[in-house]
Amino acid sequence: MTDTAPQHIHSRDNALLKDLRRLAQDSHAYRKQGRIWLEGDHLCRAALQRGLQPSHAVFQASYFGTAGHQWADAAGKVVTIEDGLFATVSALESPGRMAFVLPLPPQPALQPDAPTVILDGLQDAGNVGAILRSAGAFGFPQVLAMKGTAALWSPKVLRAGMGAHFGLRLVEGLEPQRLDGLQVPLLATSSHQGDYLHRAALPWPCAWVLGHEGQGVGAVLSARATQFVRIVQPGGEESLNVAAAAAICLHASAAAHAR
Amino acid sequence: MTDTAPQHIHSRDNALLKDLRRLAQDSHAYRKQGRIWLEGDHLCRAALQRGLQPSHAVFQASYFGTAGHQWADAAGKVVTIEDGLFATVSALESPGRMAFVLPLPPQPALQPDAPTVILDGLQDAGNVGAILRSAGAFGFPQVLAMKGTAALWSPKVLRAGMGAHFGLRLVEGLEPQRLDGLQVPLLATSSHQGDYLHRAALPWPCAWVLGHEGQGVGAVLSARATQFVRIVQPGGEESLNVAAAAAICLHASAAAHAR
Repeated sequence: MTDTAPQHIHSRDNALLKDLRRLAQDSHAYRKQGRIWLEGDHLCRAALQRGLQPSHAVFQASYFGTAGHQWADAAGKVVTIEDGLFATVSALESPGRMAFVLPLPPQPALQPDAPTVILDGLQDAGNVGAILRSAGAFGFPQVLAMKGTAALWSPKVLRAGMGAHFGLRLVEGLEPQRLDGLQVPLLATSSHQGDYLHRAALPWPCAWVLGHEGQGVGAVLSARATQFVRIVQPGGEESLNVAAAAAICLHASAAAHAR
Repeated sequence: MTDTAPQHIHSRDNALLKDLRRLAQDSHAYRKQGRIWLEGDHLCRAALQRGLQPSHAVFQASYFGTAGHQWADAAGKVVTIEDGLFATVSALESPGRMAFVLPLPPQPALQPDAPTVILDGLQDAGNVGAILRSAGAFGFPQVLAMKGTAALWSPKVLRAGMGAHFGLRLVEGLEPQRLDGLQVPLLATSSHQGDYLHRAALPWPCAWVLGHEGQGVGAVLSARATQFVRIVQPGGEESLNVAAAAAICLHASAAAHAR
């Protein structure tokens, strides 16, 4: 870390603390501030391993006292926050003891032929983060979030993504016509049409479309799908969690491609 | 609903309100109170459809005013809570407008030969709920939660389970030796041993063992596993969310069995 002394914050009205609190608690604040809030030592280490460097490394004061030396590789301004105050910054159920502030990565261009996951209005941060992890694991390097989907770089999606963000090409806020630029077929699940996934011939590369937790894939994107598949459900009427369905579909593509 | 007039609560110190708040906010309170808190109209309807009846039907006052008549099928005491107070009861990020209080179902006996999911120390309510949904969908009617796993009937797991609880045989708080009573082989995922899942011969019925979010399946249950499988991950080093891995494994069993 830099040699300048850490800035210690002990007032809840400190201006930087207020900015950080907004960044940590408001899932859209990263767009205005142009920077992201990465909370928890696991995530921060994942960022460093990818060669990313924070503009600010923010620590709970007591944690910095005992473990600050472990973070000597981190660039940026060191900020320590009075222990009781740190929890007032975090929006997580289990607040981390530290966080990085990183510049928001510039939005990349859409890559026409990349294996892709399309998020059509998903709302739950845990689901979105889990799907980013599955996309990374199963060889889908591009994720496109349609307008109305949960903000991808929000602290909660970052937390649930466990570092997957940094290995993916993430494009968000898309209108449907932007998908005209894609050259891969769009696949979606259905409750009533198409072959069963485990028997279907799956194209590669492809784009899987995943829909809103309650309403599923919207009519506009359904009309663009070139193939529907059904997921066999011998247990009957239960609906699947969307991140569970995503994992099954992405894994099926990866397994078919790996054969 | 019964003909007796609703009980209206407008004081935050009301004794019943305090009990309900504890039930809604403390994930272990159901064990002491012997009843569960089912929040949200979707979940409550799912319970009614299964023939379950609440001891209390609890409404935000304004919602009861406009939609109370839709709940004429629900038995039990009707309780209406001042709008502002209702949110102080809920522990959910998006509080429902109503909830049922239901008797905690008695813990069933372990069924030796049932397709089974074993939860070995999972902590996240969203993950546990998603796995219960997958278990229901893929024909695994029995779920065994080892001691140390998140409380299955907590309000958050109930919410994430979306009604799956009511179709499953749920046994919790198990010590490892209780698994001696199981007659089905135990399967687990591994990062380094076993066939790839998509090529593996899977026994049926079986029990899938799913581990803690950070540490995976513990040594005690690993030693009891008779088969390990790997999940192909062409994307490389990313780890999967445990509910995503569970969905992939349970679906693979269902697909192999359905062939």
